[in-house]
Amino acid sequence: MNGAKLQVKATSHEYPIIIECGCHKQVFKKINEYVDMKPSAYFIITDELVSHHYLTAVKASFPNTIPLYTYVITPGEQSKSFCSYEEVMTAALQNKLDRKSMIIALGGGVVGDLAGFVAATYMRGVPFVQIPTTLLAHDSSVGGKVGINHELGKNMVGAFHAPSLVLYDPECLLTLPEKEWRSGFAEVIKHGFIADPSFLNWLEGNISSFSNWDMNILTKLLRDSIAVKARIVEEDEKEKGIRAFLNFGHTLGHAIEAELGYGNMSHGEAVVIGMLFAFKLSEEYYGNELNYDRYFSKLVNLGYDLNIPKTLTAERLLERMKVDKKAHSQSIHFVLLKEIGEPELVKINEKDLYDLLQREVSK
Amino acid sequence: MNGAKLQVKATSHEYPIIIECGCHKQVFKKINEYVDMKPSAYFIITDELVSHHYLTAVKASFPNTIPLYTYVITPGEQSKSFCSYEEVMTAALQNKLDRKSMIIALGGGVVGDLAGFVAATYMRGVPFVQIPTTLLAHDSSVGGKVGINHELGKNMVGAFHAPSLVLYDPECLLTLPEKEWRSGFAEVIKHGFIADPSFLNWLEGNISSFSNWDMNILTKLLRDSIAVKARIVEEDEKEKGIRAFLNFGHTLGHAIEAELGYGNMSHGEAVVIGMLFAFKLSEEYYGNELNYDRYFSKLVNLGYDLNIPKTLTAERLLERMKVDKKAHSQSIHFVLLKEIGEPELVKINEKDLYDLLQREVSK
Ligand SMILES: NC(=O)c1ccc[n+]([C@@H]2O[C@H](COP(=O)([O-])OP(=O)(O)OC[C@H]3O[C@@H](n4cnc5c(N)ncnc54)[C@H](O)[C@@H]3O)[C@@H](O)[C@H]2O)c1
Ligand SMILES: NC(=O)c1ccc[n+]([C@@H]2O[C@H](COP(=O)([O-])OP(=O)(O)OC[C@H]3O[C@@H](n4cnc5c(N)ncnc54)[C@H](O)[C@@H]3O)[C@@H](O)[C@H]2O)c1
Repeated sequence: MNGAKLQVKATSHEYPIIIECGCHKQVFKKINEYVDMKPSAYFIITDELVSHHYLTAVKASFPNTIPLYTYVITPGEQSKSFCSYEEVMTAALQNKLDRKSMIIALGGGVVGDLAGFVAATYMRGVPFVQIPTTLLAHDSSVGGKVGINHELGKNMVGAFHAPSLVLYDPECLLTLPEKEWRSGFAEVIKHGFIADPSFLNWLEGNISSFSNWDMNILTKLLRDSIAVKARIVEEDEKEKGIRAFLNFGHTLGHAIEAELGYGNMSHGEAVVIGMLFAFKLSEEYYGNELNYDRYFSKLVNLGYDLNIPKTLTAERLLERMKVDKKAHSQSIHFVLLKEIGEPELVKINEKDLYDLLQREVSK
Repeated sequence: MNGAKLQVKATSHEYPIIIECGCHKQVFKKINEYVDMKPSAYFIITDELVSHHYLTAVKASFPNTIPLYTYVITPGEQSKSFCSYEEVMTAALQNKLDRKSMIIALGGGVVGDLAGFVAATYMRGVPFVQIPTTLLAHDSSVGGKVGINHELGKNMVGAFHAPSLVLYDPECLLTLPEKEWRSGFAEVIKHGFIADPSFLNWLEGNISSFSNWDMNILTKLLRDSIAVKARIVEEDEKEKGIRAFLNFGHTLGHAIEAELGYGNMSHGEAVVIGMLFAFKLSEEYYGNELNYDRYFSKLVNLGYDLNIPKTLTAERLLERMKVDKKAHSQSIHFVLLKEIGEPELVKINEKDLYDLLQREVSK
C-alpha cells in the first residue's frame, strides 16, 4: 500500500487524512487541493528537533509570495503549558495573523495539541492542519482533541477543534528514536485490542522490530490504526459514549505518567502497563480468559517494560485516578474487555481496584 | 412588564434567558427548573464588588449539602488575563471539579467572559450559567462569545461556548454606578440603531436618567435589547455574516479603548463615540441624512462625551483598527447605516477613513 486517504466527519466539518510518502514536501499544494479556503497567511508551529529534520522542506513547498511564519517550541511535554500557550499567541498576534490565517502543526502530539489549542482559541478559532511526525500522533492528530497541561493534571485545559486536513508522511517517521516508536505503537495495539482483532493478527505477523521499515507496511499500519480511531470519533466526537473506549489502558497509564512526572516515561510505555492491568482487571471482573500473555510477550520483545515502576504506590495511583478528568464525582471508571475487540466502560469498586494495584505494585 | 423569558438557539443547544426581579435569590431552584442535568458541583466565579452585594444571597439559594465553591477575582478589565485564567483553572482543579460540574458567572462582562472561557476549556468544556449584574452584560452574557485579553489586543483569545441559562435579576442593577449604566446603555441604543427603530423611540420617551428606575421599564428595556442580540446571534452564531452588525460603533470604539489603555474609558462610552463616528462615515459614504443630532444630544444629557479624546491621534487609531480581529488581511471594515435599523458591513478606503478621523480628532 503506497498511499491512503481517509475521510472523517466532525460536527463542524468533514476533513481528509492523507497518508502519502513524500507529502511533507508538498504541503502548500496539498492544502490547496484539500482545503476549501484561501488562508490570508500560514503559521507553522513545530519543535526544535522536528524543525531540524523537516522545516526547511515544508517551508520550501510554499511560494515566496505567501505570508508564512514559524514558531519553534522546545521539544517535550513541558511545552504543553500555559506559558508556551501565551507565547505562541503573542507570536501569532505579532505576525498579525487574522481569522482567516491557518495554523500548521508540524510535529508530534505535543506540537499538535498545543498548536491545535492555539488554533481553537486564537480570535475564537482559526483553521489548522496537522502534519504528524511521530507514530503516536496518528492518534493525537485525529479526533479534534486539543489542549495543554496544568501542573495539577495532564490535558486539563483544552477544546474540541477538528483540523481541516491531516497530512501524514510515513517517511518522516524514519528519524524517530526507538523510544518514540514504542510510545506510538502502544496506541496502535490499543486500536487492535478495542476494535479490530484481525488488525491485531496482522500486526503480530508483520511487526517484529521498529527498524528497517517497509513503507507499504508502515502505510497500512497507519491507515488501519487511524481508521479505528476515526470511526470511533465520528460516532462520538464529544466523548459522551464510545469514545471513552479509546481510554483503554489510559486510566492507570495517565496516573503512572503523572506520578513519575511527565516526560519520565513515554505516554505509550505507560499505556502498555495500563493495558496489561486492564486485561487483568477484565479477567477478574468478567471471569474470562483473555490470553494476554500471547500479546504482551511480543511487546516485551519490542522493548516494553510491563511492570508498574517500583517507586510508585497503590495509594498515590488510586488518588490520581480519582482526579482524572474522566472521573465523575470522583468515582473511577475503567475500560475493560469482555473479549478482544469488545470493550465496555465499567465503574470499578475502589477496594477491588486497590487490591489488584497493591498486588501489581509489590510484584 | 414584571418578568420575561426569551429562548436562544445555539448550534450546540437551546438556552433560556430569564429576566425576573429577585431571581438571584433563587439560583439553585432556577437552574434545576431550566437546566436539564444534575451538576456534580457548582463553582461560582465573581468579583470583589459584586460578591460584596450579592454573593451571600446567591450562595444561600443552594442547599447545604450541595458542593459549592467560589472564586473571587479583582474587579475590572485587568482580570481578563492569562494570569487570572490560569488561577481560576487552578482553583477549579483544586476543588476537584469534573466534567459534570457547572460554572456560574456572577457579575458583569469581565466575569462572564473569563468564567465563560474557563467553562469552554476546563476539561474541554463544562456547562455554565450567566448571572449578569451589569447593564452591559445583557449584551455580553448572550451569544456565547467568551474570552480573555492579550496585551496586544482585547478579546484576542477565546471561544464560542453558549451558556446553559442566563438568569437576569434587574434588581441587581440598582447598585451600579452611573458610569456603568452609561457603559451598558450604549449597547442598548446600538441594538435600536441597527435593528429596532421603534425600540429606539420607546427609549427616547422613557429613559431620561439612570436613577429612580421603574422595574417594569427596566425589565422591558432588557428584554427588548436582548431580543435584538438574541435574534442576530441565532441567525449567525459564528460571526460569518450579520453578527458583524453588532460591531456597530465598535471598530473605532475598540481602538479608542485600546489606545487609552483598557479601563480608562468604559467600553460603552468608547462605543458611543464610535457610533457617532460611524453615523458620520455613513453619511459620507451613502450621501444620506441620518439626523444623528436627535439621538446624540439626548446622549449628552445622559452624561456621554461625544468627542474622541484629545490625547489620541488619527495615525494610531488607524493602526489599531488594522489589527482588530475583525480585520481580514489588514483591510478595515465598518458597520455603516443606510438608514436607522439598516446596517451594512462596508470595506472602507483607508484614506477616507484617515481624513474623517483627522478632522474629528482635531475638532
Ligand atoms: N489530542 C489527542 O487526542 C491525543 C491523543 C494521544 C496523545 N496526545 C498527546 O500527545 C502527546 C505525546 O505525543 P508524542 O509522543 O508525539 O510527543 P512529542 O510531540 O513530544 O514527540 C516526541 C519526541 O519526538 C520528537 N520528534 C517528533 N517527530 C520526530 C521525528 N519525525 N523524528 C525525530 N524526532 C521527532 C519530538 O521532538 C519529541 O522530542 C502527549 O502530550 C499526549 O497528551 C493527544
Ligand atoms: N462576550 C461578549 O459578547 C461581550 C460583549 C460586550 C462586551 N464584552 C466584554 O464585557 C466586558 C465589560 O463588561 P462590564 O461593563 O459588565 O464590566 P465589569 O464586569 O468589569 O463590570 C463593571 C464594574 O461594575 C462592577 N459591578 C458589576 N456588577 C455590579 C453591581 N450589580 N453593582 C455594583 N457594581 C457592579 C464590577 O465590579 C466592575 O467594577 C468587557 O471585557 C468586554 O470585552 C463581552
